[in-house]
Amino acid sequence: MGNMDYECPHRISIPPSKPFLQSLRSAVKETFFPDDPFRQFHGQPTSRKLVLGLQYFIPILEWAPRYTFNSLKADLVAGITIASLAVPQGISYANLASLPPIIGLYSSFVPPLIYAMLGSSKDLAVGTVAVTSLLISSMLRKEVSPVEHQRQYVQLALTATFFAGIFQASLGVLRLGFIVDFLSHATIVGFKAGAATVVCLQQLKGILGLVHFTHETDLISVLHSIFTQVNQWRWESGLLGCCCLFFLLLTRYFSKRKPAFFWINAMAPLTSVILGSVLVYLIYAEKHGVQVIGHLKKGLNPLTVTELAFGSPHLSTAIKTGIITGVISLAEGIAVGRSFAMFKNYHIDGNKEMIAFGMMNMAGSCTSCYLTSGPFSRTAVNFNAGCKSAVPNIIMATAVMITLLFLTPLFHYTPFVVLSSIIIVAMLGLIDYKAAFHLWKLDKFDFVVCICSYIGVVFGSIEIGLVVAVTMSLLRVLISVARPRTTALGNIPNSMVYRSIDEYPNATKVPGVLILQINGSIYFANANYLRERITRWIYEEVEDKLKATLQYVILDMSAVGNIDTSGIRMLQEIKKNSDRMGLKLVLANPRSEVIKKLDKSKFIESLGQKEIYLSVGEAVAACNFMLHTCKSDPQDSNV
Amino acid sequence: MGNMDYECPHRISIPPSKPFLQSLRSAVKETFFPDDPFRQFHGQPTSRKLVLGLQYFIPILEWAPRYTFNSLKADLVAGITIASLAVPQGISYANLASLPPIIGLYSSFVPPLIYAMLGSSKDLAVGTVAVTSLLISSMLRKEVSPVEHQRQYVQLALTATFFAGIFQASLGVLRLGFIVDFLSHATIVGFKAGAATVVCLQQLKGILGLVHFTHETDLISVLHSIFTQVNQWRWESGLLGCCCLFFLLLTRYFSKRKPAFFWINAMAPLTSVILGSVLVYLIYAEKHGVQVIGHLKKGLNPLTVTELAFGSPHLSTAIKTGIITGVISLAEGIAVGRSFAMFKNYHIDGNKEMIAFGMMNMAGSCTSCYLTSGPFSRTAVNFNAGCKSAVPNIIMATAVMITLLFLTPLFHYTPFVVLSSIIIVAMLGLIDYKAAFHLWKLDKFDFVVCICSYIGVVFGSIEIGLVVAVTMSLLRVLISVARPRTTALGNIPNSMVYRSIDEYPNATKVPGVLILQINGSIYFANANYLRERITRWIYEEVEDKLKATLQYVILDMSAVGNIDTSGIRMLQEIKKNSDRMGLKLVLANPRSEVIKKLDKSKFIESLGQKEIYLSVGEAVAACNFMLHTCKSDPQDSNV
Repeated sequence: MGNMDYECPHRISIPPSKPFLQSLRSAVKETFFPDDPFRQFHGQPTSRKLVLGLQYFIPILEWAPRYTFNSLKADLVAGITIASLAVPQGISYANLASLPPIIGLYSSFVPPLIYAMLGSSKDLAVGTVAVTSLLISSMLRKEVSPVEHQRQYVQLALTATFFAGIFQASLGVLRLGFIVDFLSHATIVGFKAGAATVVCLQQLKGILGLVHFTHETDLISVLHSIFTQVNQWRWESGLLGCCCLFFLLLTRYFSKRKPAFFWINAMAPLTSVILGSVLVYLIYAEKHGVQVIGHLKKGLNPLTVTELAFGSPHLSTAIKTGIITGVISLAEGIAVGRSFAMFKNYHIDGNKEMIAFGMMNMAGSCTSCYLTSGPFSRTAVNFNAGCKSAVPNIIMATAVMITLLFLTPLFHYTPFVVLSSIIIVAMLGLIDYKAAFHLWKLDKFDFVVCICSYIGVVFGSIEIGLVVAVTMSLLRVLISVARPRTTALGNIPNSMVYRSIDEYPNATKVPGVLILQINGSIYFANANYLRERITRWIYEEVEDKLKATLQYVILDMSAVGNIDTSGIRMLQEIKKNSDRMGLKLVLANPRSEVIKKLDKSKFIESLGQKEIYLSVGEAVAACNFMLHTCKSDPQDSNV
Repeated sequence: MGNMDYECPHRISIPPSKPFLQSLRSAVKETFFPDDPFRQFHGQPTSRKLVLGLQYFIPILEWAPRYTFNSLKADLVAGITIASLAVPQGISYANLASLPPIIGLYSSFVPPLIYAMLGSSKDLAVGTVAVTSLLISSMLRKEVSPVEHQRQYVQLALTATFFAGIFQASLGVLRLGFIVDFLSHATIVGFKAGAATVVCLQQLKGILGLVHFTHETDLISVLHSIFTQVNQWRWESGLLGCCCLFFLLLTRYFSKRKPAFFWINAMAPLTSVILGSVLVYLIYAEKHGVQVIGHLKKGLNPLTVTELAFGSPHLSTAIKTGIITGVISLAEGIAVGRSFAMFKNYHIDGNKEMIAFGMMNMAGSCTSCYLTSGPFSRTAVNFNAGCKSAVPNIIMATAVMITLLFLTPLFHYTPFVVLSSIIIVAMLGLIDYKAAFHLWKLDKFDFVVCICSYIGVVFGSIEIGLVVAVTMSLLRVLISVARPRTTALGNIPNSMVYRSIDEYPNATKVPGVLILQINGSIYFANANYLRERITRWIYEEVEDKLKATLQYVILDMSAVGNIDTSGIRMLQEIKKNSDRMGLKLVLANPRSEVIKKLDKSKFIESLGQKEIYLSVGEAVAACNFMLHTCKSDPQDSNV
């Protein structure tokens, strides 16, 4: 059969094949440089290129000259506000990471300065994060006890931080930032809520004034540990904790009702630390079961380059911990930076941010700081306080520096129970049940991923939850790749448009023609499935005796972005199969990438170049023409 | 802005949402039962359903009643032919797996009988496979020495076979056969060629008559082992090997030239075994450095249910070996079955085949057989010999049974060097350099995967090669999911058709309108990328001062099969962004699945339901109408 005299209005031609290197280059560019970061360099003189390059890598050079006094005023307020949050949180989270409290303060000094120079977010407030702190502790304490071998444990934590930095910076340099994207929103919601639950459970140790506590983080172990030592509970500690919790929750509630008073919420932690310390000092509560921080060393961060334990037998644990915590803190930091950038309508370059985070952690690990990121709570406070640039980070660092130099003795009597209350209140904000409900409404599978991630963290461990959630997310992607949908199309009345028969009830089938749309690239992972599914479509159509006899099968390839060798082989088999059944196979709208490969594999030759049409409409027109004119004369023409 | 009086010819309505369970059911059906295996059961009476069910699970019940005498004659010839191949190959491959030669013979008795009952292929010849044999040996000998602890080693191999069977059958029962599809064609080409190279290298031990040999399989170790013991080479063995190789290659060449004489090739291995044995017997060559098989026990397979080492300390190795070899032998067996079914135009149900393979290996492991599959070479011989059904497997099993009962003493003088030659010649056929060249021509990435897989196997180990290749294939899928293409569309003159401007040089842009096509589902894995890429498209269009001012952005969603919560969030951000820039966002042809989710998330509400069109053509028509009539009157209408 040929096309007789039917003149098709548009022809599809086989595009000339590009040289290999050129197509490789464009593919690499689209994959790794989708945002075309060097666009602004085009056509600039060399000196300008140098300036632009420096500004690209060190953003402070770009915005500092334009910095105004008005901005400074706003940033000063924001900086002092986040500093008041940074000091108690720093100490609390260091405690959560089983590190000496002073390291928490150190970590709020150097990294914010580095980020202020290299980071591109105007809102991000740098600091340690509860989830990664707990993760560091739970991964490292399996190897080294933080109580018996404190120095070795600190060395390991610093080494892990160093590797987290290396890993973060390399992801940025190698433009592999998309790896972070594989932590889906649903995963993060479930993971954060689970981690917050686990962190809160850990705080019960502080609230109840317990001395011995389980090292496991799962719900069962923690509850078991608490309820087997009921006789060890200290009511003094519990009372102070409840008062503190009540105070913090009240200020939070009040600030939420009246956003203008956000600073009440922001100042509350420092206030409760001061009140708690004064109280303990006045009533000698430390002698009645209320544990206090004790002596904190005065002075700035000591250098720790020589402490990095590259020769340690636990190096592989440090690397593993660094990579996992590095990815998680990147995911949080970049998501936070992006969402606030969206509010203020400026752009954040994910890969550049990764380099900034990496540099900040590498520098931090050499100056007694452990892993830092951009925590949501602190950034939100910074944003509410009206920050205009990265300067609040510098203000905060200065405030912390002053604290380190002169004020550390003041924290001697700070009770742990107050710190625990601060952590609990901060964590409650991370349990985003509304987001979970939203997921349930929109996408059941996302909800399941979220819940699995939560359950994994709470009943297993943080690592298990993460592995479960990432595996499920990946599995979903793989299943969707392995099972692209095929839909039968019908004509929408009074148009040349063809749409799915299932989705559009008014779409009508074309008699004698089966139009199938393949929704996705054809890969080895789905070639077998597609062969079976398309064959089943054809069989079902042929078996259905009520309809006109099937003569044409049109494959709508609009959505087939690419095809690999397994896919081509599949098409060849479909072609053979339909030849045997006396059906004619026709392609509609294949993409040029696909046409090229089909041509090289001689598939187009076996099909006949005429059997490729620009659109389904034209393919159907041609088929209809053939069906009605050639029924009695099925011989070939030479046109 | 509204639509004024523009009356759009077609409206997109929001489909009614299906009950959760119903949509879950249909999704599960499409994912796991794409071939609708129980279609034939619909509307049948119960007794008929029972018969059909039995026939479904035991295909021999279906075809045996229709079996004719003519088919039997053809199958008899085919069965004897493959039996003549099965005996020497069985002994050789058992040797490759470091198992006693007799186990190779056992393995050609029970599994073919099971497969003949349960398998749905009419061409597959069951037998052991060189690659998995070598893999078993290289994985298990790390745990137990096959020389010093032979019994324990055999137990471990049988246990691994049992787990391979369990794994294969569960994949089939759970309808997870698509996991096998993730071994792409390119991976398999490279892997097989690599394994064949490695197997050939191993045979140099036999050819050169070496006693001590490395246990590593990589090229470097093998060559080192050979050239450090040049003084141990035995010329008698080498001479016999070369003669044998020459004979086998000659018959192969001859059979390839004249396909009618395929049996010469098929009989050659047995002939060379007989000639070799007679020669050794006559000239007492076993006393001159030619190693022979020696005593083989007479009698049928002993039961080995009690030998399965479930309590062994090496159980985890057995499970791992079972899973890996199980997947590989499935991949080979099913690919072979499918390609021959394609020739003869019948259908093979992958999941059913997996159950058949699994049952055959489970039964095999209880009767002294190690892992079997459907090797390509033997199946091709079976096909060429004109097999009509699975009966040749039964004939072969019978022939092997007779051999086991009466003929084993005849193999006493069979020299190993002949077996080595047989393996080498069989392996040469697996190095499919033409396929590799074809891959290079069609798809460079597939070629790279193939080569990596080859290099990994030859210079690393079989496992390394496999891991490298599967990782690369998966990475490719993930990258393609993470980076869906976005293309700007233009109008094809004299049509309502819109196609990529890059691919169709005659497509013209619509002034004031940017039409973007998103080629792929929108997931968490690509939402960030798409946001950046779409934003860049818009910026580039806005910056281009030469063109008419941009007013509309049309997103063509035809190819977006699904969207998740991260994707919806991304669209919301794009919408906010374009609002800020004074642009109007319009959607064209979203799928019903996508519309439903967009509706639930209130995105459609914020967009305005009118801004969703059936096709790009209609969206452009509406935009053009607005551009030309409302320029001076940008107020809303109430239509």
